[in-house]
Amino acid sequence: MCGGIGSRFWPYSRESKPKQFIDFLGTGRSLLQMSYDRVLPIVNRENILIVTNAQYLELIREQLPDLPEENILLEPARRNTAPCIAWAAYHIAARDPQASIMVAPSDHLITRDQLFQESIINGFEFVENNDALLTLGINPTRPETGYGYIQVGQKAQGNIFHVKTFTEKPKRELAEVFLESGEFFWNSGIFLWSAQTIIRELKTNAPDVSNCFEKGKDLFGTPAEKEFIAENFPGCMGISIDFAVMEKARNVYVECVEFGWNDLGTWSALYDNSPKNRDANVAQNCNVLAYNSTDNIFAVNGEKLVVVDGLKGYIVADAGDVLLICPKSEEQRIKQMVNDVKLSFGDKFL
Amino acid sequence: MCGGIGSRFWPYSRESKPKQFIDFLGTGRSLLQMSYDRVLPIVNRENILIVTNAQYLELIREQLPDLPEENILLEPARRNTAPCIAWAAYHIAARDPQASIMVAPSDHLITRDQLFQESIINGFEFVENNDALLTLGINPTRPETGYGYIQVGQKAQGNIFHVKTFTEKPKRELAEVFLESGEFFWNSGIFLWSAQTIIRELKTNAPDVSNCFEKGKDLFGTPAEKEFIAENFPGCMGISIDFAVMEKARNVYVECVEFGWNDLGTWSALYDNSPKNRDANVAQNCNVLAYNSTDNIFAVNGEKLVVVDGLKGYIVADAGDVLLICPKSEEQRIKQMVNDVKLSFGDKFL
Repeated sequence: MCGGIGSRFWPYSRESKPKQFIDFLGTGRSLLQMSYDRVLPIVNRENILIVTNAQYLELIREQLPDLPEENILLEPARRNTAPCIAWAAYHIAARDPQASIMVAPSDHLITRDQLFQESIINGFEFVENNDALLTLGINPTRPETGYGYIQVGQKAQGNIFHVKTFTEKPKRELAEVFLESGEFFWNSGIFLWSAQTIIRELKTNAPDVSNCFEKGKDLFGTPAEKEFIAENFPGCMGISIDFAVMEKARNVYVECVEFGWNDLGTWSALYDNSPKNRDANVAQNCNVLAYNSTDNIFAVNGEKLVVVDGLKGYIVADAGDVLLICPKSEEQRIKQMVNDVKLSFGDKFL
Repeated sequence: MCGGIGSRFWPYSRESKPKQFIDFLGTGRSLLQMSYDRVLPIVNRENILIVTNAQYLELIREQLPDLPEENILLEPARRNTAPCIAWAAYHIAARDPQASIMVAPSDHLITRDQLFQESIINGFEFVENNDALLTLGINPTRPETGYGYIQVGQKAQGNIFHVKTFTEKPKRELAEVFLESGEFFWNSGIFLWSAQTIIRELKTNAPDVSNCFEKGKDLFGTPAEKEFIAENFPGCMGISIDFAVMEKARNVYVECVEFGWNDLGTWSALYDNSPKNRDANVAQNCNVLAYNSTDNIFAVNGEKLVVVDGLKGYIVADAGDVLLICPKSEEQRIKQMVNDVKLSFGDKFL
């Protein structure tokens, strides 16, 4: 899944080049490229599909030049994860009715690729032998309030459990209880299931979504698919797969894993996951000369030099035509700021 | 005088394009152009000389296209104001031994041009009729600690007085006493004298400086001047005219004036002299969207958008390849920062 706009990372992440296409960690590979590199050892290139917004075709061609062009599914509109996943499931089922599917965001950080690959192979084996919707739950290491939590129930096998509850971003006190209990895992947004299972569960739990695709089910994998999607996808409701299916279905399981995962959903998350200098400042792709300044994150394009004095706990993000300076503690305002920018200046800075 | 590098305004003012060449106030004219415009009604174009560093020839040609090329004196090295003024005095004396001279910085702000012009005409009349070194003293409006002060003595005529003392940047308490006394005026760095008087006073008070020029005195105004300067100017000591002459000479007078003067020597001075929005923020040439932010000055090249949250009393200066964020109260550190930048990164960001 590669169609998000990453507005919480504005202005570093822009509508024209969102977060997943950026070399976020200064490694020389974008988050999308890192995600691709990570699955390539366990999934044949021909079986890796990218679902993204139509406007990102060129970026994907550039960044993944060896991906077959027909593996890029271009959404004509943004409709959240359920329609995205539904389309991919119908498309894959047309190619191989017995296929199993891993669904993964393209903009997450995973530091331990080998453990990730082992977890995925283990999960595939489970969904191939069970009628299951399997989500990957990350062993929590702190009382994070920015994530969703999954409570595990009865054990199914090995590190795979029935899911008891889903809880969206909890308050700090609750998050601390979750962490201590040992029963709660972070919802990674990585899913495994067979094409048949997810299509059936979409029909059962989210018929508004599945109907959009069901009526053209003979067209998937044919030259008529593109036109069908152009006509029908935009009319589909925008809803997340968690809300549409996972929180309603009865055959939901969680594989409890630990592979150095972070959704890089916020500047603070990026700060936490980046190497810091002795003043606890993080410099992304830039030279920083800091005086009396600690706990900041500097994300600045290219070879720019940043000189700061007296800044503590700030995000300093420079994207060429936009400069953002905002306390890390206030980063939830960024979405509102982007709205304000749109109102005051139109689309040019989005 | 147009050869300074304006390092206190780094990175907005750069060695390759210092403060005087920048459209600092967003008026469409650089400080140099504004200074030129200001003297043009009272001094013939042919009698306006620019003394500057050799590296700025192109900038001056661009910004003052109608200035005769031979009126640009190019210093082969930076040696502070005394050698600059001395060279110009010898050069002018060779063209007209009876000339009177106004010496003025090119990077000051003067808001009331007509009062300035009247003051200069009045001052010229005084130095043409008296053997005097005349400096312009500005009626102080606040206990500024960043300026030098001139104490007036006995009245000579009209608004012109003998000078009793010069005091460099006083502490706050002293500055308040100065302001209340009514006897102290800001030292503007604008001087009037005849060529003969300043040359004589240089010989008397600063022979180390005058000797550099005296030995070639028959060469000024001839084709040999350029080579003489190339050979001798760099060996001249670097010293200010205040220290070399004004504080030592006995025929020093001050004309007490009031024409909306500011030396724009610091970011705070620029802040004080710029229009503010309702949050007391100043935006130079840029769009600013500010949240919980007051008393800042934003100096950013071009059409850039700046979005800030939680910033109070800061300088935010973006020069494309350098971004500076520094509390106004700490701006005296900027010179040190520039040194640190040179040590860490060489000349590329200077």
